[in-house]
Amino acid sequence: MTTRDAAGGVPAPDRTDPEGAIAAAAARCSNWGRWGPDDVHGTLNFLTDDLRRDAARLVRRGAAFSLSQPFDMAGPQRGWRRRTNPVHTMLDTGTDAERGQGFPHGLGGADDVIAMPLQCSTQWDGLGHIFDHGRAWNGRRAGDVVTSQGDAVTGIETAAERIVGRGVLLDVGRRFGRDVASSGGELPDGFAVTQEHLEATIAAQGPTSAVGRGDLVLVRTGQYARARRDGWGDYAGGPAPGLSFTTADWLHGTEIAAIATDTWGFEVRPNEFDDAFQPLHQVVIPHIGLFVGEMWDLDALAADCAADGVHEFLLVAAPLRVTGAVGAPLNPIALK
Amino acid sequence: MTTRDAAGGVPAPDRTDPEGAIAAAAARCSNWGRWGPDDVHGTLNFLTDDLRRDAARLVRRGAAFSLSQPFDMAGPQRGWRRRTNPVHTMLDTGTDAERGQGFPHGLGGADDVIAMPLQCSTQWDGLGHIFDHGRAWNGRRAGDVVTSQGDAVTGIETAAERIVGRGVLLDVGRRFGRDVASSGGELPDGFAVTQEHLEATIAAQGPTSAVGRGDLVLVRTGQYARARRDGWGDYAGGPAPGLSFTTADWLHGTEIAAIATDTWGFEVRPNEFDDAFQPLHQVVIPHIGLFVGEMWDLDALAADCAADGVHEFLLVAAPLRVTGAVGAPLNPIALK
Amino acid sequence: MTTRDAAGGVPAPDRTDPEGAIAAAAARCSNWGRWGPDDVHGTLNFLTDDLRRDAARLVRRGAAFSLSQPFDMAGPQRGWRRRTNPVHTMLDTGTDAERGQGFPHGLGGADDVIAMPLQCSTQWDGLGHIFDHGRAWNGRRAGDVVTSQGDAVTGIETAAERIVGRGVLLDVGRRFGRDVASSGGELPDGFAVTQEHLEATIAAQGPTSAVGRGDLVLVRTGQYARARRDGWGDYAGGPAPGLSFTTADWLHGTEIAAIATDTWGFEVRPNEFDDAFQPLHQVVIPHIGLFVGEMWDLDALAADCAADGVHEFLLVAAPLRVTGAVGAPLNPIALK
Amino acid sequence: MTTRDAAGGVPAPDRTDPEGAIAAAAARCSNWGRWGPDDVHGTLNFLTDDLRRDAARLVRRGAAFSLSQPFDMAGPQRGWRRRTNPVHTMLDTGTDAERGQGFPHGLGGADDVIAMPLQCSTQWDGLGHIFDHGRAWNGRRAGDVVTSQGDAVTGIETAAERIVGRGVLLDVGRRFGRDVASSGGELPDGFAVTQEHLEATIAAQGPTSAVGRGDLVLVRTGQYARARRDGWGDYAGGPAPGLSFTTADWLHGTEIAAIATDTWGFEVRPNEFDDAFQPLHQVVIPHIGLFVGEMWDLDALAADCAADGVHEFLLVAAPLRVTGAVGAPLNPIALK
Repeated sequence: MTTRDAAGGVPAPDRTDPEGAIAAAAARCSNWGRWGPDDVHGTLNFLTDDLRRDAARLVRRGAAFSLSQPFDMAGPQRGWRRRTNPVHTMLDTGTDAERGQGFPHGLGGADDVIAMPLQCSTQWDGLGHIFDHGRAWNGRRAGDVVTSQGDAVTGIETAAERIVGRGVLLDVGRRFGRDVASSGGELPDGFAVTQEHLEATIAAQGPTSAVGRGDLVLVRTGQYARARRDGWGDYAGGPAPGLSFTTADWLHGTEIAAIATDTWGFEVRPNEFDDAFQPLHQVVIPHIGLFVGEMWDLDALAADCAADGVHEFLLVAAPLRVTGAVGAPLNPIALK
Repeated sequence: MTTRDAAGGVPAPDRTDPEGAIAAAAARCSNWGRWGPDDVHGTLNFLTDDLRRDAARLVRRGAAFSLSQPFDMAGPQRGWRRRTNPVHTMLDTGTDAERGQGFPHGLGGADDVIAMPLQCSTQWDGLGHIFDHGRAWNGRRAGDVVTSQGDAVTGIETAAERIVGRGVLLDVGRRFGRDVASSGGELPDGFAVTQEHLEATIAAQGPTSAVGRGDLVLVRTGQYARARRDGWGDYAGGPAPGLSFTTADWLHGTEIAAIATDTWGFEVRPNEFDDAFQPLHQVVIPHIGLFVGEMWDLDALAADCAADGVHEFLLVAAPLRVTGAVGAPLNPIALK
Repeated sequence: MTTRDAAGGVPAPDRTDPEGAIAAAAARCSNWGRWGPDDVHGTLNFLTDDLRRDAARLVRRGAAFSLSQPFDMAGPQRGWRRRTNPVHTMLDTGTDAERGQGFPHGLGGADDVIAMPLQCSTQWDGLGHIFDHGRAWNGRRAGDVVTSQGDAVTGIETAAERIVGRGVLLDVGRRFGRDVASSGGELPDGFAVTQEHLEATIAAQGPTSAVGRGDLVLVRTGQYARARRDGWGDYAGGPAPGLSFTTADWLHGTEIAAIATDTWGFEVRPNEFDDAFQPLHQVVIPHIGLFVGEMWDLDALAADCAADGVHEFLLVAAPLRVTGAVGAPLNPIALK
Repeated sequence: MTTRDAAGGVPAPDRTDPEGAIAAAAARCSNWGRWGPDDVHGTLNFLTDDLRRDAARLVRRGAAFSLSQPFDMAGPQRGWRRRTNPVHTMLDTGTDAERGQGFPHGLGGADDVIAMPLQCSTQWDGLGHIFDHGRAWNGRRAGDVVTSQGDAVTGIETAAERIVGRGVLLDVGRRFGRDVASSGGELPDGFAVTQEHLEATIAAQGPTSAVGRGDLVLVRTGQYARARRDGWGDYAGGPAPGLSFTTADWLHGTEIAAIATDTWGFEVRPNEFDDAFQPLHQVVIPHIGLFVGEMWDLDALAADCAADGVHEFLLVAAPLRVTGAVGAPLNPIALK
C-alpha cells in the first residue's frame, strides 16, 4: 500500500497491486459529498467569479494563443476503441458553385459535415468518462449516469461556461527534457512526472507559476512537439511521458480546478504497475472530480512564457456544448 | 439600383432586382485587396492585440456566460440541405461498465462519437461559406478555395485564435420587440433590422454599446427565446427577424470584426426581394470578408446586460479547429 | 389472458393487460432451446439448402425485383430515437475532377461516405434487436448479448448467407384495401391484419401462396404506396396497418423463417393495448427467434404477382454484413 | 502505343506513357453511344432476363455463399483519401435494457448506427466512380454527373435490381499461385493477371468456366486469404495481384456484365507504368461502362468450386440502394 513518507512525498506504489494503490489513493483524495450529494461540477466548484475576474487582470498584451491541435484526418487516431480521426466532408463546394447550384442571383455556398469521436483531438474528459468499480463521480452508480443515451447527470453541458479562469503553465518538458533549443524541451516516453518535478518547475519558473485553488494547470511534456517533428507514431495510446500515479495527492491537495497536458492520456505510459490501464484516471475523475484535458498544443504558449517569464494567463477553455457528452472537443484560448 | 439618400440612410432596394442590388452593395462595400492579395482573415484584421487587451479590462465581476445553444437531437434541423441535428452515440457506457468491460483493476470507461453538420447549431460562417457569382473572399475563384477536400485557403483554422475581443450586445429585441417582461423581448418573424434600429438601440443602451473598429457585435432579436418557449417551428430556415439587406453599408463602415445573432440565418427572412436567398450573405462574406455567427443563445447575457446597464464584455469565440472547415461550431464565452 | 377459441382463432387480448398477453403468447410460442442452447439462427434453422434449391426452381422468366426503398435524405425518419435519414456525402466529385485532383494521366474520381441508422430504411431486425424483461433470443441475458460494442452473440453477420429461399407475397392490401386500381390496394392506418386476413388472402391468391416451413413471407399492406403518393407523414413510427398481436401463434405455428412488410414497424399501430409499444415484437423476436423485415417496397413485385397470379419466387435477402449489428440494411431481390 | 500482336495478344504497353496507352485502349474499347446517349447501365445492358433465368437453373444443391467481407473496425482502411473502417455504434443496448429504458410491459431494445465510406469493404464501383480527363461514362462531363449532391445520373440506384445473373469464378490464385493446399492458392503482390492467365484458368477449370456475354466474372487472386492469415498489411491501397492493364480488350470483347476480385483495387499494384494510378479503371469504367467489384471474399466459394468442379452459379449481387452513390456496399450471394 502506498503511504506518505516522513518528508510528505509519496513513494512509488507497489507495482503488483494497482487495485490496492488505487483504493488507497481514492480513500485519501476523495471529494465525494464535499459539495453535496447532487453535485455535478467536481473541482470546478473551486473556480469562482472572483478568481475569473482576477484572471482577466493577467491580460497585459492582448496576445491570444489557441491551444488546440488540428481536427482532421492527419491526426493520430488509429482505430483503437473505434476512435478514428475526424472525417470532414462537404455538402456543397466551390467547384459545385462554379458549375451552378440552383440558387438565385448568383449566390453560391459551401457547407460541411463532420463525424468524429469526441475525444479524437484536443478535449476535456468529463466527469462521466471514467468509473471506479462501477462508481462514477460523487459515488453514483455508473449505469445511473451514462447509458447509450449519454451522460444524463454530469454531461459536459454542465461545465459549459465554467472552465474559464487563471491558467498556469508548468513547462516540465523545458525544465527536465532534451532538445530545449530546437523544440522547447521534450521528456522521453515513460517519464513519470512526480510532485517533485512539478514543484521544481514551479520554483524555477518563478512566482507567476504558483499553483493554488481554482487554477487551470497546463503541464507541457514536449511529446506533442516530438510528434509534430517525427510523426505521430503511437501518440494515441502508446508510451508517453505524463503525470505519475503518485501525483494524485498533489492534484487533490492543491485544489486545482482542472489539468491538461499535451499528451494523449495525461498520465505516464506505460503505467507504473505491472498490469494496469490509466490508474490515475481512476482516482482523479471519479474520486477527486477533476477535469482532465488531453491532446492540447502548448508549444507556442510555452515559447512565449519562456520568453517573457510570465507563466500565468487568462484561460478560456469552454467545451463544445454537446448534451450528455462524457468528453468534448474544444479550442482553448490563452490570453496574456 | 440602391442609392444612399440625402440623410445618409440606405433606402430599401428594388424588390425585383436582387442581383443589381447585390452588385451595387458589393461595389460600395468591397474589401478585396485591402489587406493584400493573400489575405485570409478579412475583417478579423481589424481586431488587434491592443483591442484584445482593452477588452480584457472590461471584465469587472468575473461572470461568465456561455452563448452556445445545445448540440443534440432536440435541435431545429429538419434535413434541409442534408443538415441534421447532431447524432451523439456512445462507444462505451456506464451500463456496460457495471457489467464489466475487460479493463484491469476495476477501471470502467465511457466514450462517445458525434456526427453533425458543422453549422447545425451555434457556429461561425467561415469566409469560404458563401460565394458571389463563383467568387470567394478577396476575389478568388470559388473552386480554387473549396473542393470536396474542404477549404484549402480560408479554412476556419486560420481564425483559430483570432476571434477574441470586445463584444457588444445590441438587444434590438428588447428595444423594439414584444413580451419584454416575459422573454426579454422578441421581434416578429420578417422584422428587418435596419441601421436606424441598430443606432437607436445603441443610443438607448448608452455608451457601453458604442460600436467601432474590431468589435464583435451580437444582435439579439429574441427569436431564440420564442423558439425555446414555443418549440422550434421553422427556426432552421423559415421566417425570422434579422438584419436588413440595407445594413451592408453599416456593417462595412463600422469596421467591425464579426457579427452574430440568435437566429438561424443572421439576415431577415423572408428576404427583402421577391426571389432571393440570403442576399446579405452574398455581400458581407465574399466582399466585406465579415465573419457571421448564427444560432447563438444571447438570452442570459442580455438579461444581465439589461440589469446592470453594461453591454460590453470580453468575448472569446474560438471556433473548433476543424482543418478546412467553411464553418465551425463553438461555445462562445462572454466575460463581464 | 388470451386463449384460443374453439375454432382455433385467437381472440383479441385484454386491452388493459399487455404484459399478461405477452407472457401468455411467449409461453405458447417459445422456441427457446429448440435448436440447442448455443443457437443464434432462430427460425432461419427452418430454411434448408433443399428449400433453397426448390426456391431457385421457381424462377421462370428471370425477372428481378428490388424490394428496397431508397436510402437518402428524402426518407421518413424524423429523429425519433436518434434515427435520422441517411446522410450521404462525397469525398471527391466530378466537379472537382474537372478542376483537377492531382492524379496522373487524366484520372479523376468520385468517392462517398454515408452515416445512417442501420434501421433507417429497408432492413432486417436481427435477433438482438428486442428483449423481453431483459432476456434476448434463446433466454440469454440482454446485457450478455448487446453492449456498446454491438451484438457479440447474434450479430447480423450470423445470418449473412442464410436469408435466401422461397418468398411468398401475401398482398393483404390488394385483398382488403382501398384504391386497388390506382395504387394496388391500401389498408388504412390502424388496420390489424389477423390470421383470418392472412388465410383469406392465401386462399384467394391460390396455391402459389401456400405458406409453410422455411418460407420468407412478405405481407403487403399498401401503406408505402400511400406514402409514396401522399408524402411520408408519420410513416416512421406513426399509425400504420400491420400484423395483429394475435398472429403470434400463426407466425410460430407455420414455422416460417422470416416475415417482412412495407411498413415501418411490421405490427399494427396504434398497438392493440391501451398502453403498449410493439408488443408483437416482444414475442416474435426474443421468443420465436423470428427475423422481421421492415420498410420494404413490395409494390412492383405485387403488381407483377397480381398480373400473372404467381405469388412465390426466389428471394435473396442478404443483410449487409455489419459485424455485431442488431439490424441491417439490405437490398432484397425477388426473382420470378 | 499499344497494339495487338499477330497472335491476338496484347503486348505490355510502354511503361513511360500511361496517358497514350489509356487513350489507345479507350479508343479500341469504347462503348460510348452503344446503348444510346441516355444510357446509365453500361455493360449491365448485356445481362437480360433470359440470362437470369438460365442462371437460376444452375442452382443444384441450394448451397448459398456470402461473398462479403465483414464491415467493422477491424478492416483494412487506414485513412487514405479519408477512407476509414466502418464505425458502428449503438443507440440502445442490452446492458441499458437490463437497467430499464422506459418502455412499457418489459420491452427492451437495441438499435444501431453506422458511419462508413461506401467503398470501405465489399463493394461495387458505380459508373460515376472514375473519370477520364473530366469525362464520365458515355461521354458526359464529370461535373454534370457527380457533384457534392452525389451522382445525379448514374447513381447506384440505377443498378438496384440488375446485377443478378450467371456468376463464373476464375480461380487464378489456385491455378498460378502458391500455398494452394493451405489457403487455396495465392498470387504474389505485383502479379499482373493477363488474358493468357484468364484463358488458361478457364481451360483448366473446364466448361462450367466459359465466359461470355452478360456474365458476372469473379477473379480470385488469393490476396484476401493471405491478408486473413497474415494481417491486412497494405491491403487497402498497397501492392497487390490484379488484372493487367492489357486485359482491357478482353474485358471489352467478352461482353461481360461485371467483374469482381478479392483485392482492394481490382487491377495489379504497382500499376504497369512508371507513374500511374489505376489506369485500367480509367478505361473500363468511363469507356467500357463496366461494373467493378472489389474486396469480395471468394475463398469459401472457391473451395467449393474446386471440390465439385463446378465454377458457375447464380450470383445475386444487389448494391445497397443509396441514392446517388458512386459506389455501394453489398452482400453478394452465390447460389450453387
